Amino acid sequence: MRLSQLFTKTRKQVPADETARNAQLLIQAGFIHKEMAGVYAYLPLGLMVIDKIKAIVRAEMNLIGGQELIMTSLQRPELWQKTDRWSDDNVDVWFKTKLQNDTPIGLAWSHEEPITDMMRNYVTSYRDLPIYVYQFQTKLRNELRSKSGIMRGREFVMKDLYSYSIDQASHEAYYESAKAAYMNVFRQVGLGDITYMTYASGGAFTKEFSHEFQTITEAGEDIIYVDETKNVAVNEEMMSDESLAKLGLDKTALVKHKAAEVGNIFSFGTDKTTTLDLTFTNEAGQQQPVYLGSYGIGITRLMGVIAEHFADSKGLVWPEAVAPFKVYMARLDSSDEVIQAADDMYSRLTGAGIAVLYDDRDERPGQKFADADLMGIPYRLVISARTVAANAFELKPRTSDVTANLSAQEIINKLAV
Amino acid sequence: MRLSQLFTKTRKQVPADETARNAQLLIQAGFIHKEMAGVYAYLPLGLMVIDKIKAIVRAEMNLIGGQELIMTSLQRPELWQKTDRWSDDNVDVWFKTKLQNDTPIGLAWSHEEPITDMMRNYVTSYRDLPIYVYQFQTKLRNELRSKSGIMRGREFVMKDLYSYSIDQASHEAYYESAKAAYMNVFRQVGLGDITYMTYASGGAFTKEFSHEFQTITEAGEDIIYVDETKNVAVNEEMMSDESLAKLGLDKTALVKHKAAEVGNIFSFGTDKTTTLDLTFTNEAGQQQPVYLGSYGIGITRLMGVIAEHFADSKGLVWPEAVAPFKVYMARLDSSDEVIQAADDMYSRLTGAGIAVLYDDRDERPGQKFADADLMGIPYRLVISARTVAANAFELKPRTSDVTANLSAQEIINKLAV
Repeated sequence: MRLSQLFTKTRKQVPADETARNAQLLIQAGFIHKEMAGVYAYLPLGLMVIDKIKAIVRAEMNLIGGQELIMTSLQRPELWQKTDRWSDDNVDVWFKTKLQNDTPIGLAWSHEEPITDMMRNYVTSYRDLPIYVYQFQTKLRNELRSKSGIMRGREFVMKDLYSYSIDQASHEAYYESAKAAYMNVFRQVGLGDITYMTYASGGAFTKEFSHEFQTITEAGEDIIYVDETKNVAVNEEMMSDESLAKLGLDKTALVKHKAAEVGNIFSFGTDKTTTLDLTFTNEAGQQQPVYLGSYGIGITRLMGVIAEHFADSKGLVWPEAVAPFKVYMARLDSSDEVIQAADDMYSRLTGAGIAVLYDDRDERPGQKFADADLMGIPYRLVISARTVAANAFELKPRTSDVTANLSAQEIINKLAV
Repeated sequence: MRLSQLFTKTRKQVPADETARNAQLLIQAGFIHKEMAGVYAYLPLGLMVIDKIKAIVRAEMNLIGGQELIMTSLQRPELWQKTDRWSDDNVDVWFKTKLQNDTPIGLAWSHEEPITDMMRNYVTSYRDLPIYVYQFQTKLRNELRSKSGIMRGREFVMKDLYSYSIDQASHEAYYESAKAAYMNVFRQVGLGDITYMTYASGGAFTKEFSHEFQTITEAGEDIIYVDETKNVAVNEEMMSDESLAKLGLDKTALVKHKAAEVGNIFSFGTDKTTTLDLTFTNEAGQQQPVYLGSYGIGITRLMGVIAEHFADSKGLVWPEAVAPFKVYMARLDSSDEVIQAADDMYSRLTGAGIAVLYDDRDERPGQKFADADLMGIPYRLVISARTVAANAFELKPRTSDVTANLSAQEIINKLAV
C-alpha cells in the first residue's frame, strides 16, 4: 500500500487523555481511535494487526477441532437468571437496555449461558458429542474504570471457545489440548517466553480453580508468582499455604511479577450444564449432564500487550507474525529516477507476496524514518539517489541499527517467505 | 468437512415461532439459531455464507479505494445530539444504556456521526482527501417488530462505507463508482437480474433523495415501481407526479413489485460535515466543508434475500458464489470398499481445492438426499456399492433432477475452478 493513500497519518503529540503506553503509541501511529474511555475504533493498520492475531488463533482453534460461529450481543435475562448471573450484585459489568415493549435485555459480556442453552437443540445423544465451537465476539463490559488502553476495554474483541464433552476423561483430555493450543498462540505472537500458565480461583465462573495465561509486563493489572523451573505461575488468590500445597509449589521458589491476563480457561464440569439442563442419553440409555469447558483469549488485549512489551523509545515494534506490513519502504528523493526505481521495487516486492507500506510522500527523510519507527514495521527499506547510483537498497530491521546494502534480488530472497 | 463432525444437524420440524421462510429454512438446515425475535446466531454453515458474501463485498469496496476499519458499538450522545439524531422522537431504533457513573450511551444503529467526528483528527488539508473507509459492523436497532427472519434484525451485520471528498464533482464521481460497485456485488451473489437501483426519499438521513438497491421478492417489506426499459425503479414515496417528472419517468411504464432493500447510498453533501465541523483548507488557503457520502449493504439481510429467492420446496438453494460448500458428497453404503472409495474421493476433491461436505454418517439414503437438498449445497455427489462397481460417481446439481455418471477425474475437472 502507498502511504500517501493510507488512512490514517501519524501524530507527534502524545494524546493528553491517555496514560497507557499502548494506547498512546497506537493512537500516535494511527492504529486506533479513542471513542471514549475503554472504547476504541480500529483503523486500517490496527485492524490488520487484529486480523493477523485472529488468523493465528483461528488456526490453532481449528487444529483442536473448533468450529467457528458467532453468537449474539443481545441477551435474554431468563438464561442468566437461572445461573444467578443477571443481578448487578453478582455480575457488575452488565450493560442493560430494553426492547420497545420494555422487556429488559442485556449486552453480552460472556456467552456460556446462551451457547449452552442453544446446545439443547443439538445435543440429545452421546453421538452428538463432543462439540467444540468458538467465536470472535465483541464483548461489552461496563467496567468502572478503564485506564489501560486496549488492555481493558469496555468494548473489546474476545475469542471464546466452548467444549461440550461426554465424560470427565474426554473433557480433561480436551482441556489439556486447549492449554497446549493456547501456548502455541502466545509463542507465535512472540510472547511465549514471558507467558505462564497460571493457577487462579474460578471467580464468577466456576467454583474450582481456573487457569489463566499471564504475560509478564509492567503494564499489567495483575500480580503473579512464577516458578521458573516448573514453568508455571499462581496468582495472588492462590498464595495461601493450602493452595500452594495442593498445587505442589514451594513458596520460596516463586518470583513476583506484574502481569496481564491474555487468556483464561475454565473447567465448568457439569455445574452449569446441570443448571441449564443440557443433558444427553449415554450408550446405556441414561440421561447424563454434559461436561463444559470455556476458553477465552482477549484478542484486542493481546494486541495491547504485544504493543507494550515490544515498544521502545521510538515507538511500536511488531513481531513479523502480527505486523500490518513486513516492510516500510521509504523513498528519500523525488527525482524521476528515484521514483522510477522505488515504483519498480514496490511492484517486485508486492509481486513476490511481500506486504509493503510504500512511503511515497514528499516528506523529509527524518520524518519518514520517524514514522517507520513509530509504526513499528519489522523492516525499513531505503531508496535514495545514493542507493540507486549504487544499484542497491538499504535494509534495516526495526530492532537493529545495522543497515545492509543489498540488491533487489537479495532483498526479495531475504524477505519472501 | 465430514458431516459427522459438523456442528449442527438438520431438523424436520418447521420452527413454530417463525413465519419468515428464510428463518424457517436456515434454522431447519442448521445455519442459524434464534436467540430472540430479530436476533440470530450464525452457526458454522451460516457464518461460512456470511464470510463468502463479505469477501465479495470487501473485494468490490477495495476496488473503489475503500480501506477497512471497525468503529465502535458504544456511542457518546453528544455527537448525535449535534445532528438531532439522539432523541427517540427523531430516531426510534436506539438501544440506550448507561455507564456505571450514569452517563447515558447509545448502541450504534449507524455510524455517520462518530466516523465524521473522528475524521476531524485526520483531515486538515486538501492533501488529506479523499478518504474512503468501510466496515463490517454489527448494528443494533430496537425495531418495534421483527418478523422477517434475518431480513430485518434487531442485531445484524452491515457493510457501511463512507466517502469524504473535496468537492461536488469528485463526490459525485465517487458516488457513481459506488453505484456500479453495488450492482457488481448483487450480480455476483446471483441477484443482479432482480435488483434495481431505486430512487427514494432521504428519510432520516438526508434531505435530498437517496438511492436504494431493491431486490424483487415476495418476502420484501417494500413496494417498488420498476421501469424495465430504463432499468431503474422508484419506491412509493417517489410516486408523486412531481417526483416522477424530476426523474424523467413515466407512470404508465412502471410495474409494481414487492421488494427488499439490500443496499442504500446517501449523498449527504456538506450538510452533516458542516454540522459536525469537518472542514479542510483548500489550495487557495480557504476553509471548506468536506463532502460526505454513505453507502450501506445489509450483509445478513442479503443472505436472507438470497435464501428466500432461490429456495424451492425441498429447501435452500445457494448460488455457488456464496454456498458454504460446493459439493455434498453422500456415501450410501457402509461396506469397507465404499468407505474406502468415498474417503479417497474426499481426499482428492479437497486436495483439488474443492470445498466438500462429506456425509459419512450411517444414515439411510433418503435422509442424506433430504439433508443435501435442505442445506442447498450446489452439487450432490453420490458414492454407493453400485457406483463403485461401475468405477464412477453420480453427480447432480441442486437445481436439476438430471444425474451424470462420471469418473473421479471428470468430476474434479468439472468442479475445480
